[in-house]
Amino acid sequence: MEMYLCFDVGGTNLKSAIITNEGTIIIKRSVSTQTEKGVTGVIHQFQEIRDVLCRKLAIDAKEIHAVSVGIPGFVEMEKGFVTRAINLGWENVSIADMVTDALDYPVFIINDANAAALGEMWKGAGNGHEQMVCLTLGTGVGGGVIANGHIINGTHGLAGEIGHSCVRMKGGRPCNCGKKGCLETEASASAIGYYGEQAARNGQSTILAKKWQETGEITSKDVAEAASQGDSAAQKVLDTAAYYLGLALANMYTITAPSRIVIGGGAAAAGDLLFAPVRKWFDYFVFADVKGTDLIVPAALGNDAGIIGLAKLADMKYTSSSMSNL
Amino acid sequence: MEMYLCFDVGGTNLKSAIITNEGTIIIKRSVSTQTEKGVTGVIHQFQEIRDVLCRKLAIDAKEIHAVSVGIPGFVEMEKGFVTRAINLGWENVSIADMVTDALDYPVFIINDANAAALGEMWKGAGNGHEQMVCLTLGTGVGGGVIANGHIINGTHGLAGEIGHSCVRMKGGRPCNCGKKGCLETEASASAIGYYGEQAARNGQSTILAKKWQETGEITSKDVAEAASQGDSAAQKVLDTAAYYLGLALANMYTITAPSRIVIGGGAAAAGDLLFAPVRKWFDYFVFADVKGTDLIVPAALGNDAGIIGLAKLADMKYTSSSMSNL
Repeated sequence: MEMYLCFDVGGTNLKSAIITNEGTIIIKRSVSTQTEKGVTGVIHQFQEIRDVLCRKLAIDAKEIHAVSVGIPGFVEMEKGFVTRAINLGWENVSIADMVTDALDYPVFIINDANAAALGEMWKGAGNGHEQMVCLTLGTGVGGGVIANGHIINGTHGLAGEIGHSCVRMKGGRPCNCGKKGCLETEASASAIGYYGEQAARNGQSTILAKKWQETGEITSKDVAEAASQGDSAAQKVLDTAAYYLGLALANMYTITAPSRIVIGGGAAAAGDLLFAPVRKWFDYFVFADVKGTDLIVPAALGNDAGIIGLAKLADMKYTSSSMSNL
Repeated sequence: MEMYLCFDVGGTNLKSAIITNEGTIIIKRSVSTQTEKGVTGVIHQFQEIRDVLCRKLAIDAKEIHAVSVGIPGFVEMEKGFVTRAINLGWENVSIADMVTDALDYPVFIINDANAAALGEMWKGAGNGHEQMVCLTLGTGVGGGVIANGHIINGTHGLAGEIGHSCVRMKGGRPCNCGKKGCLETEASASAIGYYGEQAARNGQSTILAKKWQETGEITSKDVAEAASQGDSAAQKVLDTAAYYLGLALANMYTITAPSRIVIGGGAAAAGDLLFAPVRKWFDYFVFADVKGTDLIVPAALGNDAGIIGLAKLADMKYTSSSMSNL
């Protein structure tokens, strides 16, 4: 049995786990990411966490075979290089080499949404699907594209950024990426909350207006709840998000033709209130040969998708590097 | 030196060649495709052509190492299976096995636009780019998507059908695929001709109106010529096609992030009259990190892209199958 030490580095939380080559989480832990201390600060956290986890499991650090790190940004996987991770404040960092120097393991890195895609492929809703796409609808829209069982990383690690495909040619909201009308500004959990708040402010939805007066904000969860109570404005917000998701996914389909599309993240909690219109609009936009298939499913692993995918990455890379040493 | 026998099967012409593993075309030949005789008729043509080419080169048929076939339709490469090739009238055909039975070689098959993509990657405008996309703007819009040097084939061979990505959400023309507003109906050579003819009929372009009265039709070449003479309606037709190409390519970029995008086919002959606005609109729609790069280039191999790509496919597959026999 191999054991892998996995770090899912978020802008807020640093999740970690030791996971077997069969995907069993032996131990996990979450701490605040000390982004203010820069790259070396985070690597120092890795060392501390490694020591804590090994002590708790009463194992020697040498029993860990490899380290896998998920990063919210553009990652050149083969080079072990982060081009840019805005929420961490990292730019052009040879993170894999730095972690190897500090911890003395083989180190593999991957974009966080790509890790979630691998996790869902291995142990979740994409199990058995080597042609797969995974979207995470949270603050932004993360994406991971898998062909023949491997993540498509692309030039400078820019593949899988489906959240920045343009779905509103005119009149879209400004996106963090510098463009307008990205899928992210129309169909992320934040976007659904934003349009729900608009419906509350405009008096289109009594339920959302009441919620907004109580709490001062509207989340995608509030929109889903209002929709489930038959609120037509809330249903319209979900249907519009679904329209843009259906369009982007149908066009994505023409590129890689996956056999499974997995959607996770906060907004996916709306369930069929979101998935039914997403499937409807996907069928509307996708070319005729694909209609009627049941491609689009909810993610299954929740918050563990990332760390489980990190273990899968480590296992694929560690096994292939061991093989090449034979 | 290995020699491969390559067949690029079109609805009208059946192109063939014997090509070395270094990409040198030793001999080539083109005949009319006898589609009316069905699959077996075409395979019979393969046999005849093989005999003719071998006789002309004074080589024994056994000196050919493998056969590679390009097909205008949905091709499951690993299975050697054609799901559907409308222009040939083929549906659910195990073509690779049938050709092996008839000719007694290892046989590899691929979609024709995918073959052109491999050709451009190997010996053309995509040379050295293992992350690449190739579009062919002809009667339709063919596409090939390459990641890590290999064609992405997708479920049921449906990957790379970028021509059927939806670029006009409302008001698009009907496409052969059964949908409306596909890239193919807005930016193929035929589409450019169609919109040029509209400009002639509506009296928006004197140059195109004159041409139309003379010949009864407007081709993409006519539109390019009128545009080069400063005809603003013709320039508008090219700019509109470029708008949709730029949009589709920018959104494609978010999926696989290629380092090169090659555009060929009849419409590409317009040169910078088309490429300049395509690059402009691509930069407009693509997310900010990509702007300013010189990704989009004209194809270099012309009509030979397909057969050269077929030789590349044969070489990749033949070499890897020989390796696995070691």
